[in-house]
Amino acid sequence: MRWKTAISHVTDGKEIIRGYNLQDLIQKKSFVEVIFLVLKGELPNEMETRMMNALFTASIDHGIGVSSAMTARTVVSTGNSLHTALASGILAMGKLHGSAIEDAAKFFQENIYEPDIASLVKKLKDRKVRLPGFGHKILSADPRSQTLFTVAKETGFYGKHSELAVKVGEELNKISSKKLPLNVDGAMGAIMSDMGFDWQVAKGFFIIGRVPGLVAHIYEEMMSDNGLRRLTEEEAEYCGQEERKL
Amino acid sequence: MRWKTAISHVTDGKEIIRGYNLQDLIQKKSFVEVIFLVLKGELPNEMETRMMNALFTASIDHGIGVSSAMTARTVVSTGNSLHTALASGILAMGKLHGSAIEDAAKFFQENIYEPDIASLVKKLKDRKVRLPGFGHKILSADPRSQTLFTVAKETGFYGKHSELAVKVGEELNKISSKKLPLNVDGAMGAIMSDMGFDWQVAKGFFIIGRVPGLVAHIYEEMMSDNGLRRLTEEEAEYCGQEERKL
Amino acid sequence: MRWKTAISHVTDGKEIIRGYNLQDLIQKKSFVEVIFLVLKGELPNEMETRMMNALFTASIDHGIGVSSAMTARTVVSTGNSLHTALASGILAMGKLHGSAIEDAAKFFQENIYEPDIASLVKKLKDRKVRLPGFGHKILSADPRSQTLFTVAKETGFYGKHSELAVKVGEELNKISSKKLPLNVDGAMGAIMSDMGFDWQVAKGFFIIGRVPGLVAHIYEEMMSDNGLRRLTEEEAEYCGQEERKL
Amino acid sequence: MRWKTAISHVTDGKEIIRGYNLQDLIQKKSFVEVIFLVLKGELPNEMETRMMNALFTASIDHGIGVSSAMTARTVVSTGNSLHTALASGILAMGKLHGSAIEDAAKFFQENIYEPDIASLVKKLKDRKVRLPGFGHKILSADPRSQTLFTVAKETGFYGKHSELAVKVGEELNKISSKKLPLNVDGAMGAIMSDMGFDWQVAKGFFIIGRVPGLVAHIYEEMMSDNGLRRLTEEEAEYCGQEERKL
Repeated sequence: MRWKTAISHVTDGKEIIRGYNLQDLIQKKSFVEVIFLVLKGELPNEMETRMMNALFTASIDHGIGVSSAMTARTVVSTGNSLHTALASGILAMGKLHGSAIEDAAKFFQENIYEPDIASLVKKLKDRKVRLPGFGHKILSADPRSQTLFTVAKETGFYGKHSELAVKVGEELNKISSKKLPLNVDGAMGAIMSDMGFDWQVAKGFFIIGRVPGLVAHIYEEMMSDNGLRRLTEEEAEYCGQEERKL
Repeated sequence: MRWKTAISHVTDGKEIIRGYNLQDLIQKKSFVEVIFLVLKGELPNEMETRMMNALFTASIDHGIGVSSAMTARTVVSTGNSLHTALASGILAMGKLHGSAIEDAAKFFQENIYEPDIASLVKKLKDRKVRLPGFGHKILSADPRSQTLFTVAKETGFYGKHSELAVKVGEELNKISSKKLPLNVDGAMGAIMSDMGFDWQVAKGFFIIGRVPGLVAHIYEEMMSDNGLRRLTEEEAEYCGQEERKL
Repeated sequence: MRWKTAISHVTDGKEIIRGYNLQDLIQKKSFVEVIFLVLKGELPNEMETRMMNALFTASIDHGIGVSSAMTARTVVSTGNSLHTALASGILAMGKLHGSAIEDAAKFFQENIYEPDIASLVKKLKDRKVRLPGFGHKILSADPRSQTLFTVAKETGFYGKHSELAVKVGEELNKISSKKLPLNVDGAMGAIMSDMGFDWQVAKGFFIIGRVPGLVAHIYEEMMSDNGLRRLTEEEAEYCGQEERKL
Repeated sequence: MRWKTAISHVTDGKEIIRGYNLQDLIQKKSFVEVIFLVLKGELPNEMETRMMNALFTASIDHGIGVSSAMTARTVVSTGNSLHTALASGILAMGKLHGSAIEDAAKFFQENIYEPDIASLVKKLKDRKVRLPGFGHKILSADPRSQTLFTVAKETGFYGKHSELAVKVGEELNKISSKKLPLNVDGAMGAIMSDMGFDWQVAKGFFIIGRVPGLVAHIYEEMMSDNGLRRLTEEEAEYCGQEERKL
């Protein structure tokens, strides 16, 4: 099997990352600049660096209650090591948790040349397709998406995809009975599209941002005296077949 | 079951991270500063921020050949999504891949008040205990650990644990037949100890740094036309029981 | 959160599985009968038991070269415990490894009342849709599917879905330039459909059958002296940016 | 890298498992016999087959409340596929969930020639070492271990390790203030030792037995209308830093 990569090269104790010596990167560049480098192939400029910082920070944590934090803490509580617990937390990021960024980026990238947004939105609504990146459990406006757009405007990354996102939102809210604000996933998907990233790497942005939060949760759980996490008898209910003879 | 956390709080659409409003953090702080915040509970100063950047960057990637990259690429090649492939790559970080930072940090923290390093090192060598954080496959000096110590000296984090690491290395090389330099894991373990981090979170530093590299590998594999990764017939060898009748 | 189940109930040290006392099951029933019980809700008859045994046995292992075995062995070689290595092997079972059973079962269940198979097959071929459960890398007939159908005929589970599978194969091979035999995944998908199982649990059949094979591989790797599995320098190739100054 | 195995060989469409043609195994042997074959290298006799069936059945499920079931169901509820959810459930089997079989088998195998059990038990109790395989949350006798020993006596696998387990239990209960019965993990560890299995594969027995139970839980969750599993606001509590200005 051949294994080819353009990302990095380790040889004779020297390591090259996308053409740059790792030692130089350690001394002269920030972590986020080097993240951009491994993902894009080139170092970012100042505006790109600031925007990347904002995107990752927006993902860093979302409370103990989300499925990934709850899963990672359960798994470390059973006596696993940190890396095993972290992996399980990441596995909990299925289609319904952390994937809306990917779906939204895909939707914006695929419809960027669509001339008639109003018709598109109406057609999808008629087919009961849920538009990715819109809606919030409680709020009628999502402050995190507004903050991200503020940074995007300051850094020059409020571009065609972001405009499309806003336009889609306007059309959607004309015909929706419920207020459906552009949420943080939608804003992230639009902005990273405007930065030139492929939607297929979008979920990676969310996960890179969230991993430190999960590490913090795992460490907090390790230091606690909660013991093994499992359901109590009151939390579980049996609704099956009554006892019977074999 | 009670689930308590001091990390973050999401309520009525507002999110608090270690006391700070997430929206303010997005606008005013870098990702690495917020990583420090979730892990330590307080925002870092400039020196801490620079040191953290260097530690994460030192971990960002180490070639396609390491077990975690090879595993993550294999798993995405079988038609899995990015998060599943990433989790499998992290699972490959067992005791022999990425754990030396943890072992080294533990060793330095447990022996920080040890008065007689020479005897300790000799005793462990006699018992054939391998000292974590020392040794390199090819090199007699590890340039990455030297670079990290340069940054540590500039930022004020070349402290007691780093000195202990160097002292242990000196004693070890007096009695070892083979040159055993302090490697990058040993330097990271010493420096994060000097920054006040518990060894039990040490492996998290390595993983936070490496996740972007793994995401880059997974994305590169997704974009390639390698197809399903599995062994070729030539790579596998059967050494078992000859065919027999049932 | 409410957690309801009809599978089992543990209370006061007594455990009920689908209505039966676990102690009775241990003494009087075989493992495969109890697998059927947890999945279907009722104990199997003799014919069902024999068919289930054949299906699981057909999946038990497929050489060291498949992605799941290679991944599980790599992950245990890095110093992980058995359960972590096994989980990583299972993660390697993406859309291209072990999923054809599910796809085939779904296809047969969705088209069971299709009156005109020839047109359906032609239409899908024209659209370049690959029919799940057909084709083999080397062989023009798959002996494992023939063996499973032999058992299915003996046990009475060669029913409508199996007939559909054979019919689809006939039509497909009339218009395909390459011989495309019904493979083991196709046969398993058809037979479990004829046993009344939902295609959504189909992949579980494959995994239940394969887990013992993976455990054997992991144990063999643990007992070997292979050391850490990673690529050699010859196996990896760098095709990226030449070295450049920062 | 060389990949050698004695387990199986696939060549020219024929598959050999430990020397036997897979097609013959499918037709003539039960799943449990073939599990024994891949793990041990030889087919079992009738007594071995019955004992293996009892061991796997004893592990098949233990309610929705255990960490592995809860984790697998949470992960599938986030929109993951069956194999990803199953892997996460297996990851939840850390040192405190499913590992007591391994610990018990190791303890019995390492102390099988110990002449003075009473002193050994006392010494360990004085050092506050918890003996693996003893103790039950509620019960003063574990009915599952009694059932397994009944089968072991009938099949001839109540041997030296089982006797040691009973003897250790007697000595332990002479000096323990609390009743500590041999539990199901202890009985399984003793019996598989008496069958000649290495303690290092012991956890594999537990997992092989439990995987079908987890598949049933995952399928039940997929078919339910529970939606995304995460903590409710009432279940989560914030105990951190009060809100502060940046």
